[in-house]
Amino acid sequence: MGIFQRFARLPLKSTYIWSLCPQYSTDLTTVDSALIVRSSQLIQHRCVHSRVMGASPGNTGAAPPRLPFSRVTQEDLAFFRALLPGRTITDPDLLKSSNVDWLKTVEGNSEVLLRPKTTEEVSQILRHCNERNLAVCPQGGNTGLVGGSVPVFDEIILSTSLMSQVITFDNISGILTCQAGCVLENLSNYLEERGFIMPLDLGAKGSCHIGGNVSTNAGGLRLLRYGSLRGTVLGLEVVLADGRILNCLATLRKDNTGYDLKQLFIGSEGTLGVITAVSILCPHKPKAVNVAFLGCSSFQQLLETFQRCRGMLGEILSAFEFLDASCMSLLEKHLKLTNPITESPFYIVIETAGSNATHDEEKLHKFLEEVMTSSLVTDGTVATEATKIKALWSLRERVTEALTHEGYTYKYDISLPVEKIYDLVQDMRGHLGDMAKNVVGYGHVGDGNLHLNITSPSKDPALLAAIEPYVYEWTSEWKGSISAEHGLGFNSRPVRPCTYFSPLRCFWRGNGSPTGFSGENYP
Amino acid sequence: MGIFQRFARLPLKSTYIWSLCPQYSTDLTTVDSALIVRSSQLIQHRCVHSRVMGASPGNTGAAPPRLPFSRVTQEDLAFFRALLPGRTITDPDLLKSSNVDWLKTVEGNSEVLLRPKTTEEVSQILRHCNERNLAVCPQGGNTGLVGGSVPVFDEIILSTSLMSQVITFDNISGILTCQAGCVLENLSNYLEERGFIMPLDLGAKGSCHIGGNVSTNAGGLRLLRYGSLRGTVLGLEVVLADGRILNCLATLRKDNTGYDLKQLFIGSEGTLGVITAVSILCPHKPKAVNVAFLGCSSFQQLLETFQRCRGMLGEILSAFEFLDASCMSLLEKHLKLTNPITESPFYIVIETAGSNATHDEEKLHKFLEEVMTSSLVTDGTVATEATKIKALWSLRERVTEALTHEGYTYKYDISLPVEKIYDLVQDMRGHLGDMAKNVVGYGHVGDGNLHLNITSPSKDPALLAAIEPYVYEWTSEWKGSISAEHGLGFNSRPVRPCTYFSPLRCFWRGNGSPTGFSGENYP
Repeated sequence: MGIFQRFARLPLKSTYIWSLCPQYSTDLTTVDSALIVRSSQLIQHRCVHSRVMGASPGNTGAAPPRLPFSRVTQEDLAFFRALLPGRTITDPDLLKSSNVDWLKTVEGNSEVLLRPKTTEEVSQILRHCNERNLAVCPQGGNTGLVGGSVPVFDEIILSTSLMSQVITFDNISGILTCQAGCVLENLSNYLEERGFIMPLDLGAKGSCHIGGNVSTNAGGLRLLRYGSLRGTVLGLEVVLADGRILNCLATLRKDNTGYDLKQLFIGSEGTLGVITAVSILCPHKPKAVNVAFLGCSSFQQLLETFQRCRGMLGEILSAFEFLDASCMSLLEKHLKLTNPITESPFYIVIETAGSNATHDEEKLHKFLEEVMTSSLVTDGTVATEATKIKALWSLRERVTEALTHEGYTYKYDISLPVEKIYDLVQDMRGHLGDMAKNVVGYGHVGDGNLHLNITSPSKDPALLAAIEPYVYEWTSEWKGSISAEHGLGFNSRPVRPCTYFSPLRCFWRGNGSPTGFSGENYP
Repeated sequence: MGIFQRFARLPLKSTYIWSLCPQYSTDLTTVDSALIVRSSQLIQHRCVHSRVMGASPGNTGAAPPRLPFSRVTQEDLAFFRALLPGRTITDPDLLKSSNVDWLKTVEGNSEVLLRPKTTEEVSQILRHCNERNLAVCPQGGNTGLVGGSVPVFDEIILSTSLMSQVITFDNISGILTCQAGCVLENLSNYLEERGFIMPLDLGAKGSCHIGGNVSTNAGGLRLLRYGSLRGTVLGLEVVLADGRILNCLATLRKDNTGYDLKQLFIGSEGTLGVITAVSILCPHKPKAVNVAFLGCSSFQQLLETFQRCRGMLGEILSAFEFLDASCMSLLEKHLKLTNPITESPFYIVIETAGSNATHDEEKLHKFLEEVMTSSLVTDGTVATEATKIKALWSLRERVTEALTHEGYTYKYDISLPVEKIYDLVQDMRGHLGDMAKNVVGYGHVGDGNLHLNITSPSKDPALLAAIEPYVYEWTSEWKGSISAEHGLGFNSRPVRPCTYFSPLRCFWRGNGSPTGFSGENYP
């Protein structure tokens, strides 16, 4: 049983168990020559184990206990205050928002929030914590949905919020280098003034940090067009658990000298190190953007519309998103948004982005004419003006927010072959019957990524038992993934409601869990 | 000194030395719980050390000796023949082409060529070799330029040439899954019949294998449009050195469950395992393709043309390549190709690929009108018909072939900020004066990737000494990379002429070297 096998596709009934670091171990000295593993284990001791310190009230036997990390002493605080004068926060009121996640479903008990401004400060913090055996929880914009961005127990919160400087931008190559705490929307604005855009966009853009986006390998709304961060991130600077600084901050589009180590840190949710700076390839700002909001009477017609759309819009298609009628009801009910078209079972948001407004409009109109004539689409509206574009996008982007007003939400972020994504919603509805208040589906059609959300007036263990493992078995049967873009976070079943824990995929999370920068991305 | 530091950007005068595995060690048992390192070390013992067995004639003291691997015995051959009846080649005449690289500059002395058809066979071969302490050199299409695809001494050659089956293709998602030995051009043809294309294309497409492309992280002609393999490769199946099969053969566009382990195998040139199958996201076949071949009177004008091109062609630009007048002379002299336009100091190949022929032609003609009117471009021709497109492309694709007729060629594959790429060629010309027969430059402008080639009637140590470390210092000064897309291979200076060894970037190759699938890609 080894780390490699953790990633192999296992049969449904597999009983493999792999624990990242089942107990605090002093074996580290035996692998002194293998620093890659050593660093990884150290980080796990700091960050992963930090997530499993001390049982929360209500934990079942499956919840891990707090491991024997040190407690923060007056001497530690003196060290932090000397290093970060005015940026070592211990006031409980000021700490509150950093201890609670965006969904307000999980809460930690950290008593110290550190706000470094430089990589060197991060390095010194981690070196001190490593030597003192203090647990650390790195935190970006704290917008995650899987409980990965807040402490579980009393870990020190290391926030990147003051690491918000653009380091360089090259307007010939479009390569941006910036600190990890830059807010995505601020970067977008910075770039747009210079004729470029970020290669990713997501609902949380106003709060999420680029370091968190990279740590969680955020997908979002532009993946269809510009691809994943694994292709667009060109370089990273990372601080390892013992304070060493790993500088992979290349700004070259191509570099094949040796292993591409930075890939290990993309999507590993802070378990292997704290990202402190990012260099990323940014596309030119499109000269023309159009958004169409369309209604479909069946998911089959929606899929057929997607196929036609790819053929006819081709290289200018930049997003193809969907929401169902239940999502629309929640938007209307809780956020007072207005449905701009006739009521339909399904709604599509299509975005085009191109270099020639006339050509783009011509392509879009030809496509719309075809899908309307062939009755694939029942009604629709098109926006070319920024305010109206934003209003149409908000119908897709604010579904997550609308759901927070519905009581309790069980959230699932599933990758599936695109033709199967809505079958899961329908099967789940049939399976749950009256148990659930709402079963809604929305997400990224172009990426085969469904956000399945099941609401209930409050936490409901019986409902959860009906959802899981059903949702995992269903996903496994169709060779899907139970985390398309949200990451794994910490939400293991008995402790946390919105869970990605599964014996099918994430069996290795038996009693340890990655943590850290997780979950910058509410979708 | 650790593996992490190998990838850090070091100051020019750094004296750090890191050897991947300086000697055969039994320390492995001390890291039993850290299988990621263990596997990596095992592979290095098999594959990396296989590359440094026994000193070649003419080696200087810096060349590594053959390490104490076993010799192939009759019992080994009996095992291989039972496993691979008719596919265990020992005839020296049949082995010759597998022992010599495409450039015919390096030659190994392998006495056994194995041609497995299945992953299970690869697994059994590696398990046997691991147990018997036999060195192995995996080989794809053997089109590499850096000496990575042929044995150095008497390693067993493990060829993927019979692993050439398409496993699945999903024409909704465009996701192809195939064996590692599929020839790139065959995959392209297979996909084009189904309305799709491969996301990469390169001059060696008629011979190179997709497994080799992925192992070397090949760049090629479409990177500008479709991005790197790190974004488009969705899954890999890999056999580790001890025969274990790692199945990461996902076919999902998004999957954030755990570390993305497959990234370790992309671009690691076979040092961590043998890739046996690949799943890859393929774009739709564009409905319209145009190629323009243009002349520029200075590199500054070429760069200005590139900037205008990106702005005006935008999303339909799929390649922007260049060659200089010296390249054109070689094409005319050795391959009898005809320059279709007026003689110029620089030539550009621009390709557009889009979904609407009328729109694309309109964009292209508007662009051409502007660059001709503003005298950025002095002459040009455009092709829309397949045969003519192919003829224009061959002027760029066959430069490497033309160079092979020039005597001896010192080849460098440099990544630089795009505005600097031709300065290196000019500075090198000035630096070498009459020592070199030819100093030519060509490459991928869109990716900041220069292929610098210096020719000489025959091997010339004095010329080499004038080129290196000059080229590395120059590249380092401008924060470039000495291997943009070719990989590192085995060409360390005293042994091999076309070298990427450098104390500046590749200091870790002191006496060990990656090997394997390297170098599928002549550019």
